[in-house]
Amino acid sequence: MFKKILLPVDGSEPAKRAVQLGADVAKHYEAELTVLCVYRHHSPLEASLSMVRPYNPETPDKALREYAKGVVEEAAGELTELGFKNVPQVVKRGPPARTIVKYAQENDFDLIVLGGRGVGDVEGFLLGSVSHKVTSLAQCPCLTVK
Amino acid sequence: MFKKILLPVDGSEPAKRAVQLGADVAKHYEAELTVLCVYRHHSPLEASLSMVRPYNPETPDKALREYAKGVVEEAAGELTELGFKNVPQVVKRGPPARTIVKYAQENDFDLIVLGGRGVGDVEGFLLGSVSHKVTSLAQCPCLTVK
Repeated sequence: MFKKILLPVDGSEPAKRAVQLGADVAKHYEAELTVLCVYRHHSPLEASLSMVRPYNPETPDKALREYAKGVVEEAAGELTELGFKNVPQVVKRGPPARTIVKYAQENDFDLIVLGGRGVGDVEGFLLGSVSHKVTSLAQCPCLTVK
Repeated sequence: MFKKILLPVDGSEPAKRAVQLGADVAKHYEAELTVLCVYRHHSPLEASLSMVRPYNPETPDKALREYAKGVVEEAAGELTELGFKNVPQVVKRGPPARTIVKYAQENDFDLIVLGGRGVGDVEGFLLGSVSHKVTSLAQCPCLTVK
């Protein structure tokens, strides 16, 4: 049933566990894996409200893109150790949840495996907002990992 | 990685699709399946605020329990057709999400497969509150199905 599995990563511990679990599911289903890291556009307007204003507004986006590239490279490296070769590494800019869901739909992924983070509550009641939005908006099944 | 899979069901279409997907995962992992239906306690206090008051407060709970038994029987019947024999059928009373999560933890389930329903938004932005709570509170991975 699962042929194409998308692994959105952000460098967090739950995302790393999601990579491990996604690899396990991919092995059981002989499915393909893709790692994706989405970074937000650095808004000069937002930045202008803070104390620090970049001289060159291109620079923050570039730094974020480089960071995202490092995150997908690390995840792909873990997958190589687990026996997966040539795993596509995708970096996108945009609102994280919507960008993940759009990418999954446009490329016919049939499973998204992602880390769910508890925020805002001592009991971990709330899912991280990105994983909650992805799970809500995605057309395909979503596997959430703690 | 998955040895015991819990399928919370409520008779809804997404829950039925979750049963199909859960069966598929169980086959790939050679895992055991259990179906669970949780019904809420019918509160006489709440009922007293409505126009209809039961003569015997035991009766509504009994009716809800019978309904829940029918739901798990139907799910177990579908699983029998898919080749799963003697699937445990569990009926519990309580707040749905917390009861599902508690049952999963007490019985060492390592995956919960459940239907996520879009409510409250034309875009289906919000997950059904039960699936959102379960996904947030559960210690084990959760697979949400549309």
